[in-house]
Amino acid sequence: MTLPAPSDKALVPFVSVDHMMKLVHHVGIDDMLRGLADYIETDFRRWELFDKTPRVASHSEVGVIELMPTSDGEAYGFKYVNGHPKNTSEGLQTVTAFGLLADVYTGYPVLLTEMTFLTALRTAAMSALAAKYLAPEGAEAMAMIGNGAQSEFQSLAMKAVIGLDEVRLYDTDPGATAKAAHNLSNKGLRVVACRSAEESIEGAQIITTCTADKQNARILTDNMVGSGVHINAIGGDCPGKTELAPDILLRSDIFVEYPEQTRIEGELQQMAPDHPVTELWQVITGRAPGRRDARQITLFDSVGFAIEDFSALRFVRDRIAGTGLFQPLDMLADPDDPRDLFGMLMRAAPHPV
Amino acid sequence: MTLPAPSDKALVPFVSVDHMMKLVHHVGIDDMLRGLADYIETDFRRWELFDKTPRVASHSEVGVIELMPTSDGEAYGFKYVNGHPKNTSEGLQTVTAFGLLADVYTGYPVLLTEMTFLTALRTAAMSALAAKYLAPEGAEAMAMIGNGAQSEFQSLAMKAVIGLDEVRLYDTDPGATAKAAHNLSNKGLRVVACRSAEESIEGAQIITTCTADKQNARILTDNMVGSGVHINAIGGDCPGKTELAPDILLRSDIFVEYPEQTRIEGELQQMAPDHPVTELWQVITGRAPGRRDARQITLFDSVGFAIEDFSALRFVRDRIAGTGLFQPLDMLADPDDPRDLFGMLMRAAPHPV
Repeated sequence: MTLPAPSDKALVPFVSVDHMMKLVHHVGIDDMLRGLADYIETDFRRWELFDKTPRVASHSEVGVIELMPTSDGEAYGFKYVNGHPKNTSEGLQTVTAFGLLADVYTGYPVLLTEMTFLTALRTAAMSALAAKYLAPEGAEAMAMIGNGAQSEFQSLAMKAVIGLDEVRLYDTDPGATAKAAHNLSNKGLRVVACRSAEESIEGAQIITTCTADKQNARILTDNMVGSGVHINAIGGDCPGKTELAPDILLRSDIFVEYPEQTRIEGELQQMAPDHPVTELWQVITGRAPGRRDARQITLFDSVGFAIEDFSALRFVRDRIAGTGLFQPLDMLADPDDPRDLFGMLMRAAPHPV
Repeated sequence: MTLPAPSDKALVPFVSVDHMMKLVHHVGIDDMLRGLADYIETDFRRWELFDKTPRVASHSEVGVIELMPTSDGEAYGFKYVNGHPKNTSEGLQTVTAFGLLADVYTGYPVLLTEMTFLTALRTAAMSALAAKYLAPEGAEAMAMIGNGAQSEFQSLAMKAVIGLDEVRLYDTDPGATAKAAHNLSNKGLRVVACRSAEESIEGAQIITTCTADKQNARILTDNMVGSGVHINAIGGDCPGKTELAPDILLRSDIFVEYPEQTRIEGELQQMAPDHPVTELWQVITGRAPGRRDARQITLFDSVGFAIEDFSALRFVRDRIAGTGLFQPLDMLADPDDPRDLFGMLMRAAPHPV
């Protein structure tokens, strides 16, 4: 007996890791980073209509598993993400992620996708979007301190979105710097490998910190930071993990995604609970000033927020159409008669009765 | 350039709707219902060690999308489920569901599966497990009031787990009764189609209510329920939706999965906030009595709880091994060097640079 194929409604497009990499090359990484920044900007402009549920975290002794849901009333998205620092010593990734987008009107999922690459891309796009509003006019050079997995994405996003010319790489591990310099060669950026954090900062209008240091670190100390720079602090992103000396925060105007979360996870955890911050969406919508003058130090205290993942899911949903870069998954039961789920099951028997 | 295939670690087994139906036939539906009841019983015995996070619900005017996570410290599971009553008028299902199981130690997903069929099966297995502890000794006949999608699963689970002989079907729609009677023919049960709820109850030691009535309904009124029966109330499962006259609740000893949830969603929403209930896990572990005498009315006020989905996910993970009834999904990026995600992306370029 031949069974009918599942109806279209029952099929959810799935973007695998392989398809995501192909999508990046199909769109072009610069256009993808710009597109992601545009989608995030669109969503930050309508910030207030989002359902901003807190993350739902399940902690264990060795790590955490989190679900990060949000909705704009039309689409619903969530990201599954784990964080297990000990994984690397066992040949596994510290962080893996996948995400889902659904239609609020029907409740049906419309996209399932890997999100390890997508998160790397949206994190970089978010940094570049913040720099567009906060970096000094005509910023040309960026110090990139910490040359791990995020460093190339950060560098290319700054090039794609604000026209960065030069990236100045530094890492305590020269091998990481060599890897990043190799990966960034012939990508339209002047690449300078530096032997110290101080050297990387010379002539840079933007300083990005993205290290894997676990404890409260001092990647930047107060005397390293001159007036007029924009600091893009990526690596301080969970309780107990910060990268900047607190004196720098006291001299900076601090911009954040979602204060409730940043005060727990960001550089901001070093400050008093009422330390003043500006929400970036208010800068983007014109309700709050961004950079006011050339001597001001601006600090984007980035921790990553669910709305950015939502924007990224929307982008992928829109861009996979017509590409074939997905598999349709038979994930939703679609019986002809909703009351007859059992009949559907019996008709699928190897020897139907 | 040929890229290496994703490593095993990056692959998550996915059980589609089609594979789930094949798994049911491979295992055998009676064995599957018994197996699910066993897994739920095992998990209810270790109830206290579960992380019982509340559901995370996203409501809209037309429906709800929920994530239901839980963990036993070794595995972590969640179910995505929507509820959209208006969907049926548009040729879509009211409820669709899928679920995921992950390894707490690594944070890596280990199973993604459809859960529309699996939820139908686990709901029936849960009812049968409750009846095992609460129904009168030697119960042979069950009234099945409401002959929709859940009715056949309920009937077969009672047969598989407690040895039910006869099911007495009634629905306000005779077509639904005819469908269920047809589906249950030659399944090892004596099937009696009844023309009234009263007729269905004659001689039944168990009364299962599972209707789609949306408002506070009176599927059972007080004078219909004699002493000594076990009531298995499935359909009262969300705020504003109940099936039993409150007088019945006052005469019954009420057993629930998780009181905090049942008081909001179950028949119990008709009672005072401190109305006494017994948690079923305490009956199963021997800490609280179940049925005490032959004249007592026991009521299982079923709403469905995350731990039951977790048990079902564990069952599927264990049973698909060696069957081939799943597809490996390339869902997790697994670069050779975790610091070199960008290099992995570049090596996937159509014309690697």
